[in-house]
Amino acid sequence: MQFTMAPMNLALPGKPVDLIHTGMWTAKALGELKKGVLHNVAASTEAEKFVRVPRQDEIKLSPEASYVHMCTNNTIEGTQWHAMPETGSAPLVADMSSDIASRQIDVKKFGLIFAGAQKNLGPSGATVVIVRKDLAERADKNLPTLLQYRTHIKEKSLYHTPPTFAIYIIGLVMEWIEAEGGITAIEKRNEAKAKLLYDTIDTSNGYYICPVEKASRSRMNVVFRVAAGDEAKEKKFAKDAEAAGMVGTPGHRSVGGMRVSLYNAVTSEAVQALTGFMREFQRTNG
Amino acid sequence: MQFTMAPMNLALPGKPVDLIHTGMWTAKALGELKKGVLHNVAASTEAEKFVRVPRQDEIKLSPEASYVHMCTNNTIEGTQWHAMPETGSAPLVADMSSDIASRQIDVKKFGLIFAGAQKNLGPSGATVVIVRKDLAERADKNLPTLLQYRTHIKEKSLYHTPPTFAIYIIGLVMEWIEAEGGITAIEKRNEAKAKLLYDTIDTSNGYYICPVEKASRSRMNVVFRVAAGDEAKEKKFAKDAEAAGMVGTPGHRSVGGMRVSLYNAVTSEAVQALTGFMREFQRTNG
Repeated sequence: MQFTMAPMNLALPGKPVDLIHTGMWTAKALGELKKGVLHNVAASTEAEKFVRVPRQDEIKLSPEASYVHMCTNNTIEGTQWHAMPETGSAPLVADMSSDIASRQIDVKKFGLIFAGAQKNLGPSGATVVIVRKDLAERADKNLPTLLQYRTHIKEKSLYHTPPTFAIYIIGLVMEWIEAEGGITAIEKRNEAKAKLLYDTIDTSNGYYICPVEKASRSRMNVVFRVAAGDEAKEKKFAKDAEAAGMVGTPGHRSVGGMRVSLYNAVTSEAVQALTGFMREFQRTNG
Repeated sequence: MQFTMAPMNLALPGKPVDLIHTGMWTAKALGELKKGVLHNVAASTEAEKFVRVPRQDEIKLSPEASYVHMCTNNTIEGTQWHAMPETGSAPLVADMSSDIASRQIDVKKFGLIFAGAQKNLGPSGATVVIVRKDLAERADKNLPTLLQYRTHIKEKSLYHTPPTFAIYIIGLVMEWIEAEGGITAIEKRNEAKAKLLYDTIDTSNGYYICPVEKASRSRMNVVFRVAAGDEAKEKKFAKDAEAAGMVGTPGHRSVGGMRVSLYNAVTSEAVQALTGFMREFQRTNG
């Protein structure tokens, strides 16, 4: 819904929406922009199959962009922005669905942040939106009431009956994060989890290969190939992993290979179990 | 959202949306239509403060309406349609949020039915939509993807991550309804619950007054005044009821008085307890 609400509310007449194209989620946002919103692809790594996010010097912003759309973490491609792009006076709009609450961010750098709850915040069925009040005032008041951000600000998210259960669980998850030591502690743990997995891949003498450039590697979604992309071996990897209690390792059908997600709820012990399994799989299937 | 999606998807160029105005929920639908959708108020009982739904002979349909919008049960006003309006060749679009699954309906009579889950179906955070496939094909394909009914048909409600918990609970509620004897049994129970409460009101020698015309009285939401609308007595009624374990009896602030909802989850025993309390309150506060 935010792919629709962001341009509906924030696009200014004659001023393009700039989009930084980094994978399937920005492709969905682009698809909605193509339905009649003036826009510009300010940068794209599609030609390199999205194995990295663009460098700052590759981003060609419009002189007067309404805003710049980005996705901070790309679940399918396994990439993540570790330094946010500079967009000058154009507000930065970030889809943080898959890495919100996984690390510290400077909220003031963003005009709009949105995130489906279902990765790090709680159950599916709720979306968190953080929007600068002045940007929420850009919207035409003739837009459908429910699709105006200002409605939800004014009505304190009670314009419609809210998804009470999802919100309640998000509250419990926030309490859990605080009890764990806050986002700084969560971030450290996520860094360590990702390092352990990437190190296992990088020290496998090429048996496991992560196609993503090191500077763009996601701490939330780790993609890798097994035995140089031998699909029979990859199927066996998924099957053996499942037998060992680790389900869902196959990557998205559009890219193949394996994908392991390390969202906040995944423990360090779980990643240790996986890396142990990976070493053993390599030993017996090398 | 359906107040927006219904006209977006079903309104045809040059053919007005007809609306039957029966209270706050149709007022919300009308408010969205006024944002640029050609429309016509085919009937309204606003002049009578919505104490009944319109008779068939009062409904003035447009010759070529895109569809006719109605609300089958009006929660604030305490009215309900007991025979659905005839709309000829114009599809009937019904907001059934507050009485779906409370009684048998002939689904074939409707072009579109929508209902928030939170009254009779399960928790908040999900909306059930039943739409005729040919009507879902009316929509301009340039509409936002998520706002096209056809998207959800094509993707089997999985275009976006669905609200899994809400859907799971709705499934359990459906199983409960079947175990109770199905909708026919639920309907009988609801009839009996409503009859008990309305009889208590109607046999109180005018101490309790239901302003709603008998033929339009809702089996889901019963509105009534205490002691001819004496507000001090009504406050005492709410307070004493709360002390007796019955909370939430005050009516909506726009109409005052009392309102009691008899959704499927309310047991016959609960209604007996309420009517017992009402007789005792009348005896001691008459």
